[in-house]
Parts: sequence; C-alpha cells; structure tokens
Amino acid sequence: MELDLVPRGLAFVIEELPLVDHHVHGASTQDLSRTAFEELITESDRPVPQWMTQFDSQVGYAILRHCAPLLELEPFCAPEEYLARRARLGAAETNRTLLGAAGIGHFLVETGYRAGELLGPSGMAEVSGVPADEVVRLETVAEEVAAAGCEAGAFSRRFEEELWERARTARGLKTVAAYRCGLDFDPAPPTPEEVTDAAGRWLAAGGGRLTDPVLVRYLVWAGIERGLPLQFHVGYGDPDIDLRRSDPLLLRGLVELAEPTGVPLMLLHCYPYHRHAGFLAQVYPNVFFDVGLGVSYAGARAEALVAESLEVAPFAKLLFSSDGFGPAELHYLGAMLWRRAMTRVLGGFVAEGEWSPAQAVRVATMVGAENARRVYGLGAVEPMGMRTR
Amino acid sequence: MELDLVPRGLAFVIEELPLVDHHVHGASTQDLSRTAFEELITESDRPVPQWMTQFDSQVGYAILRHCAPLLELEPFCAPEEYLARRARLGAAETNRTLLGAAGIGHFLVETGYRAGELLGPSGMAEVSGVPADEVVRLETVAEEVAAAGCEAGAFSRRFEEELWERARTARGLKTVAAYRCGLDFDPAPPTPEEVTDAAGRWLAAGGGRLTDPVLVRYLVWAGIERGLPLQFHVGYGDPDIDLRRSDPLLLRGLVELAEPTGVPLMLLHCYPYHRHAGFLAQVYPNVFFDVGLGVSYAGARAEALVAESLEVAPFAKLLFSSDGFGPAELHYLGAMLWRRAMTRVLGGFVAEGEWSPAQAVRVATMVGAENARRVYGLGAVEPMGMRTR
Amino acid sequence: MELDLVPRGLAFVIEELPLVDHHVHGASTQDLSRTAFEELITESDRPVPQWMTQFDSQVGYAILRHCAPLLELEPFCAPEEYLARRARLGAAETNRTLLGAAGIGHFLVETGYRAGELLGPSGMAEVSGVPADEVVRLETVAEEVAAAGCEAGAFSRRFEEELWERARTARGLKTVAAYRCGLDFDPAPPTPEEVTDAAGRWLAAGGGRLTDPVLVRYLVWAGIERGLPLQFHVGYGDPDIDLRRSDPLLLRGLVELAEPTGVPLMLLHCYPYHRHAGFLAQVYPNVFFDVGLGVSYAGARAEALVAESLEVAPFAKLLFSSDGFGPAELHYLGAMLWRRAMTRVLGGFVAEGEWSPAQAVRVATMVGAENARRVYGLGAVEPMGMRTR
Repeated sequence: MELDLVPRGLAFVIEELPLVDHHVHGASTQDLSRTAFEELITESDRPVPQWMTQFDSQVGYAILRHCAPLLELEPFCAPEEYLARRARLGAAETNRTLLGAAGIGHFLVETGYRAGELLGPSGMAEVSGVPADEVVRLETVAEEVAAAGCEAGAFSRRFEEELWERARTARGLKTVAAYRCGLDFDPAPPTPEEVTDAAGRWLAAGGGRLTDPVLVRYLVWAGIERGLPLQFHVGYGDPDIDLRRSDPLLLRGLVELAEPTGVPLMLLHCYPYHRHAGFLAQVYPNVFFDVGLGVSYAGARAEALVAESLEVAPFAKLLFSSDGFGPAELHYLGAMLWRRAMTRVLGGFVAEGEWSPAQAVRVATMVGAENARRVYGLGAVEPMGMRTR
Repeated sequence: MELDLVPRGLAFVIEELPLVDHHVHGASTQDLSRTAFEELITESDRPVPQWMTQFDSQVGYAILRHCAPLLELEPFCAPEEYLARRARLGAAETNRTLLGAAGIGHFLVETGYRAGELLGPSGMAEVSGVPADEVVRLETVAEEVAAAGCEAGAFSRRFEEELWERARTARGLKTVAAYRCGLDFDPAPPTPEEVTDAAGRWLAAGGGRLTDPVLVRYLVWAGIERGLPLQFHVGYGDPDIDLRRSDPLLLRGLVELAEPTGVPLMLLHCYPYHRHAGFLAQVYPNVFFDVGLGVSYAGARAEALVAESLEVAPFAKLLFSSDGFGPAELHYLGAMLWRRAMTRVLGGFVAEGEWSPAQAVRVATMVGAENARRVYGLGAVEPMGMRTR
Repeated sequence: MELDLVPRGLAFVIEELPLVDHHVHGASTQDLSRTAFEELITESDRPVPQWMTQFDSQVGYAILRHCAPLLELEPFCAPEEYLARRARLGAAETNRTLLGAAGIGHFLVETGYRAGELLGPSGMAEVSGVPADEVVRLETVAEEVAAAGCEAGAFSRRFEEELWERARTARGLKTVAAYRCGLDFDPAPPTPEEVTDAAGRWLAAGGGRLTDPVLVRYLVWAGIERGLPLQFHVGYGDPDIDLRRSDPLLLRGLVELAEPTGVPLMLLHCYPYHRHAGFLAQVYPNVFFDVGLGVSYAGARAEALVAESLEVAPFAKLLFSSDGFGPAELHYLGAMLWRRAMTRVLGGFVAEGEWSPAQAVRVATMVGAENARRVYGLGAVEPMGMRTR
C-alpha cells in the first residue's frame, strides 16, 4: 500500500500511539565497537565472517535509513559514518535519542539475559521518561537459586519463594523452554518427586544452564501457578534454538491443560510460525501472540509479517513488542517498523474499502496498547496528546 | 491490486460466475442470539471471553462491511444494529437474502455435523433456487450404524451397506480423520480382522465418537472403494484439531496407495498449509485442493491466501468452496471474498502483463466451477446469462 | 510494485546483470513432442491426465507470455502454435535462443541426473557463449562406482578416488539426500565399519539407486571432506520427495557439525521452506540458499517468493539459480522471472523510501552474481557492458 493512499487520521493515530512494548530487554549501557555492534544486529552468535557485514541485511539497511536521521546524519549513510557518529554521541545519548523516538508508553523489560550489559527497568524508565516494569525469566531465577547453593529437596520451595518475591512487582513471567528443551516437552506438571530427582541430578552436576525437561516443565507450571501472564519464546531466535522444536503448535497440550487457570499465555515473536500462532489465538481464549523481533529483522518486509499476523486471530489477541536487546536501534526500529507496517496494512484495508477508518484506528490501538494494558493490568490507555516525547 | 486497474470483463465474469461450492454445510434454520451468532463466526468452541467480541476480527469486519448492505444497513454499522436487523428479518429471510447473493450455481452439502440445526441439501436448494447435492461424512455413517446397534463382526458389512445406500445419490464423501486421529495414520488398509477387533473395542465401549485409527483408516478405504471423490478435512479448524497433525503432507502415503484407484482426493481448507497442498496437487494426479474456510476467516486478507494457492498447482487441480456453516453470512462471504480475491489476484497478473485477460477468465472459470463439475460429474457449466439469481 | 515506479537505473542493472546460475542442469538435446514437453514443465513424473494440460499452470502461462516472443510469436499464443514453432526451429536453435536470452554469465551445471538427454557443461558453454563448470552429484558417482563392480571393503576408497578425480575441475558437489532418505538422517559421519557393512548390503543387492541412510551420510561427509561447496536439494521437487522430510531445519545437526570445516552448504530451491532456510542462513555462517525452481514454477507469483527470501538472511547468503532442466524455457524463465521479481521487490523497497537505489543495485548484484563468484571461486564479476549477449 502506498503511504499516500492511507487516510491521514489513521497514520497520525498510529504515529502518536503510546505503545506498550510488552516484551523488551534493556538497551546497552556500553559504547559498542563495530564488531560488537554487528554482532548485536543479528541473532547469530557466531563472529561475522570477514567477507560480509551485517549491515548488508534488512535490519542493517533499516538502521541506515531510519536511525541515521535521528543521529542527524543523512539517510543511507555509510556504516562507518553511522558508527562514528554513534561513538561520538556515546551510549547514553544514543539511548536517550532512540528510546525517546520509539514513542513507547510503557515498557515491560525482561531482565533474565545478560542483564549486566543492559539497562534495567529503572534505567529504561529514566532514559525514556515512561514507566518500565519487569518481566522475570523463570530459568534465570532457578539458576540463581542453584548458584546460591541449594539442596535438591529444597529446590522447589526455594525457587518458589524466590519467584514469588521477584514477582511481587513484576508484570509478567517468561520462559525460554524453546531454547532449553524444545516446546515438545510433556505438557503435564511433573510430580514433586520428579522435580526433586531432576533437581538432584542438575545440582550434582553443578547447576548452571538449566535444560532438563522435567525442571523446565516444573518452572512453567510454577509460573502458571503464580498467575502472571506467562511469555513463551516461540520461533525465531539465535542458533541455540532448534526452530523445528519452537513451533507454537507444540504447545497445544499445555495450552489446554493451562486453560482452566485463566493465565494468559503470551507467544512471543513466532516467525516464521506466526500463522500457527494466529490459529491458536483464535481457538484458545488463553493464547495471545506478537510478531516482535521478526518485524525488526525483516526491515522493509515488516509489512508482510504484520499482514500475515492479521488473518485469523481476533484482534483482542495480538500485541506489539520490539524484543529490542542491546543497541537502542532495535528498540526504535521495533516500534517504528511496526507503526509503518500497521499504517500500510490497515491503511490498505481502508483504501480497498474493506475496513472503515474507525475500525483501523480501533485495531491499531488495541494491538499497540490496549490489549497489553488489559492483559498485564497496566491501567487505561493514556489519552491522546498526554504523551511526553 | 487496485480494483480500478482490473480489466472490466474479468471482474464481470467473476462476479457473474455461478460457482460450485463443493464443500459447504447448511445454513442455520434458527434465529441466533448474539452469543450464538458470535460463537458461530469463529472456529473456537469456547465461550467468547467477556473482554472481547468476535466482531473484532477479519470475519466480523467483513460481515459488517459486506453483509450489512444486503440487509439494507449501512456498511460498517455497529454489531448491535446488524444483529437487531437480522433478528427482525428472521432466519429464513436472512438465509434467502445471503444465500441468493452468494451466486452459487450448485451446492455440495456435507450433512454429517450438527445437521439438526441446519438446512439439508433440499432446504439449501429451495432457499437458493439452485441444485444442492449431498456429501456424506464417513464417520457419521459409522457412528449411526453403531448407535443403531451392531455386532463387531457385522460392523463392516453394515457400514458398507449403509454407505452404499447413502451414497446412491451423493456426489462425494468426506472424512474428518484429521480431527479423529490426525492425518499421520498408517496409510495401508486394515485387514478385516483388525477392523472387527477395533469395532469390537469401540462398540463395547458404547460406540459414540469414532477415533480409533484402525476404524478411521477402514472408513477412508471403504470410501475409496466406493469411488466417489473423497474430501479430507485438512489444516485449519476448531480446537478439536491438532494442527500439526493435519498437514496434508502427512497424506503422502495414502495418496500414493490410492492413486491406482483414480479416486479424486479433495483436500479442503488447507490453511496454513495451502502451499503444501499445492505441491501435492502438482505432483499427484489424484490430488485436488481448495482454500475455503480460510478465505472467509481472513476477510480483508483473503487475497493473500488465494494468491498463495495459485503458485505451483496446475489450475485444473484447484477448487472453490465456502465451507459455510450456520450463519448464511459465512456462505455469502466465502463466495464474495473469493470473487474479490480472484478478481484482484488474476487482475493483478493481467495488469502486470504476465497473463492475458482470456487466461484470467479461463482460470477463474476452472477454479470457480468447471473443475468441480468435472470431478463431481455435475454436467457442463451453465452458459453465461442463464443463471437465475 | 508497478514496474513504472521502479527506478530506471535499477531495472537496467538487473536486466543487464550477467547472472551466475549456480545450480542448473543441461538443456534438452532432443526435439520434444507435446507429451514430452508437458512432462518436463512439471515436477510430476506421472503422465499428464487427459482432462488437463500442464500449460494451464503458472509456468505454462509464463512460457506462452515470455518465451513465445523470443520465438517470434505473439505473447499468449496457443500451446499448439508455440510447440509447432519450437519444432520447426529444432532443439539446437531453441536452446541457442533461450539460453542466450537468459543472460547468464556463468553456469554451474549439475551432471548427475539423466545426463544422456541433456547438454553437458561444454555443450552449455558452447550454446550460450559463456563459461560452464560442473557440479558433481555424489550419489551418481557412488552408483557408477557400484555399477563398475566393486567389493564392499573397497567401496569407500574407490568412491573417494573417483570423487577426487571428478572434482578436480568441478566447482561444487551436490547431494540428493532429501530424495534418498530424507534430511532427517543422523548427522554424524558413519564409521568406516558402518560404511563397509552398508556398502556390502547395497552391493549384494545389486547396487542401483542408493538410498541407505548410512551410505548417504557417508557421501555427504566425503563431500564435506573434499571441501568444495556442497549443494543440498531442499524442499520442492518431484513426487520422489517426501516434502516433510526435506525441511532445511532438519539439517541443523549437520550444519553445526560441518561448521568447523568452513565448507559452504548451499540449500537449493527450499520452497515452501524458504523462510526456514533464511533463518539458517542468518545464524550459521556456513549456510547459503536460493529460491530457484520455485521461482520458475510460480510464474506470475515469483515476486512473492523472492520477497519472502529477502527477510532475515544477510544478503551475502542468498544466491540465484534457475535449476533449469530439459526445455531451455526453464533456464530462460528462471533468469527472467528472477530479474522481474528482484526488480519489483527491490524497486518497491526503493519506491517506499526504505532502501536507496544504490543499496538495491548492490543487493541485486550480490545475489545475482557476486555471492556465487565468491563462494565458488569464479573470479571477479565482469564489468558492466563487457557481456556478450
């Protein structure tokens, strides 16, 4: 859809909408070398081969197109020029500029991965001037309990104490079961004996990275018990993922077992399985999803992903997230590319006569903010024009 | 593709084409409360959560956009207004209006699911003024045989008698193996002893919902033996489906075993696996498919699904269906959204210079009617202008 | 994207770019009857049913649209007219015309399948006037070793001698593991004892088509040992494929085991799993992919496939191939449809303001030629205007 066919009002509303970024990590606190920067704008954890640059990618071109002007450079400048300017500004100023421009109304910050390099929720709030709450990663809590020293028989009690404590102020929980054992785990909760046995094996081996499927299931069910919305990494991610085993359809058994609890299950990212997630979101009241991460990495193709997410799921079941991690470019692009994509896709529906402008505004507002505010209990959407930016 | 770039002749032909709806259920005979209506415009079988409405979905917006004017309301009216108008008209008048507007030339009505609430083939024919023939669901016949009382040793004979009787006037058969045991069943026909044993276990347990994979395979092979085109539920459906186990690629073994019989295997719906179905339809002469159901539920995104169905399959292997069930809105939208999508997609091919207008007309006519008339033996396509509407 | 919105310079560069067709088979040396021709413009190996023609397909319409004018016929002529003209010209002249019009700068010709009916690398070079090198199919070499007579204990030595000899001048190797045992084979190299045992069973049964998973794994690892880029058939193909077992994600284990060798793994075709391939290409430095074959067969839908291939993979990891086999129409369309699709997709990114024209030119050149030149060591891209055509 050509942008000049999109109704002005719709483009304006989407542009100004204070988004709830319901799954995001902190921005980098450190200045980044070219190597470090390139390694953070890909999901690969391998060194960048000398015969290529990560700037030759959709996300790389999106940075040069959309972030460069925010750093007062010409769009499509050279990577060297971009990084030199970024280095002169420093991490703090770059973060302030890019996080500010993202126009987020509320951040839900997942704190369980490489937190030492990143702004925490309070840092994100301070830099952006909007509220930022925590999402607690279950596996990290368990690993911290193990690292602090713990008997197998006390593990579950210690874990739950710690989780309940951490979750007092948190808005949601997160599991990376997809990375640790695949989503094809047995959906039933393990028995206490199974948990103690598995904890014994894990702790005897020195704890560390928790991958035992029994323990992962235990964490998931403890998270459901806690009752906060539970986020699942689904689909696309770093090569630690076996993408075949992160298809959301593998969660069917768990979705059905968890349905009576009423706990919202939040499927994150989902690319390239976002149509599968849309199906689950249509038929199961407790399933929600987003297409974050993929939208940023798809750059000029973000519109296609967003369009594919707007097929069979009811609009109350779809959310926005950036999954930004590290360079604040990713936080900004997550929001900016989503706004452009939604403007084009919904604007296209309006231009074709299929939707009314009011319907398009309604859906943009639901997906961008209201659904998250309802699910996470964040209070009403701020009225238009009240946002500081 | 903007509609104003589409050749007029193509749009006219598609608009006026008397479609063969080769897989449809009856329209509701009853007036529908708001709750009942909302529960019928989703594949979910769960109550609609109080914090959402199914009208906030592609299909909901398509109803308000396209069905409202047929009920003499403004497009994009409020759901309340729509349902109030619908209630004033009553089920019979609503059905007459919407089924008439669908412009179907021939209905093939699947009668095996919740038939008591729906118009049967003769009712559909009467309301629409066009022929309507039956498609018989194998599992329902088997369950009726069991319900009537039957010894295990007599089951297969009784089933086949009943099936042959029912199929005397039917145009096709249908299996919901995908719902009952998944499409990953052993493709070989079971032995008579296996069937008797499985029937014994099932009947001893009181019959009812038939899910035993041996019996499902038996029904499928009895259907193939009968020789009518055999429809398979594939892909998208209600949460009774394990979507992973309804991938049409799972049918490869059966397709190959059945190939010598020449029986057409009709893959229904297929979303989100329609590209998989297109591959099977290219390489196996006995495989046909459609993207019904998904087209209705995707609303403003129907064009994308239809386009994706027009990739690798020869055009003789693709059909139209609405899979309408219950509210006649679904019957109407299935046809109307397919027409719009085909007009845009094929019109786009013509506008880009890739297809001639004559090719576009030819493919629309094949997919919309001729392929089904050939496969189901419905006689030649009515000449243009002969259609009563 | 309407072509008239695409920057002229971009369209010109893509039109004139001397492509490297990094995976192609020879053109037919024989005149083709209508039956033979229709059987070669589908991946089906079944006779064409009498109630249909393969010309009623995307690839059929693309032939009538784009190849007819090269044979001095009107676009959209009748199939009969097209084939009559083709017969009058004869195979040699048809090949010269169509291969010449493809504008390829360098062919990498896979010689392991039905080579007797097709031009070899030297024939392709002669007809087209550009270099053509060989890609050696591992399974064919092994089958030739068996056919020449070989003891089980000598098999691996004999195979490796033959492979090293054949690969002296070849640019790459190819495996059809996907057809022979599925990509879900055990990724670890088999032991010499396992190879000898499996070879013994195979040779005792008379050799022939090699399908034993142990031997397939052995060939793959011997190919990796040899060190040339190793091409994998992935996804779409003839009905010999179980498409479920040709998902590139199944190669994850092998990709990781092979990563230290630095051997480029080239995933061919990939439809409908090209997004899966793009993920692998993003996260693993040793993975490359293309969307050949699918592009030709998708005809007017080629743009969609190409667009979907330009999402998460870095642009240094994507290549062009036609996978042309037999009728030179397929070689021409592979190139021509790729050019049109790239022009539209990249031109669209430019028209929407997301990419600069220079970025679009850069990516087209990388994907169309430079990536293949680097991976296969073909020397620098010829300067513009130097190409004979």
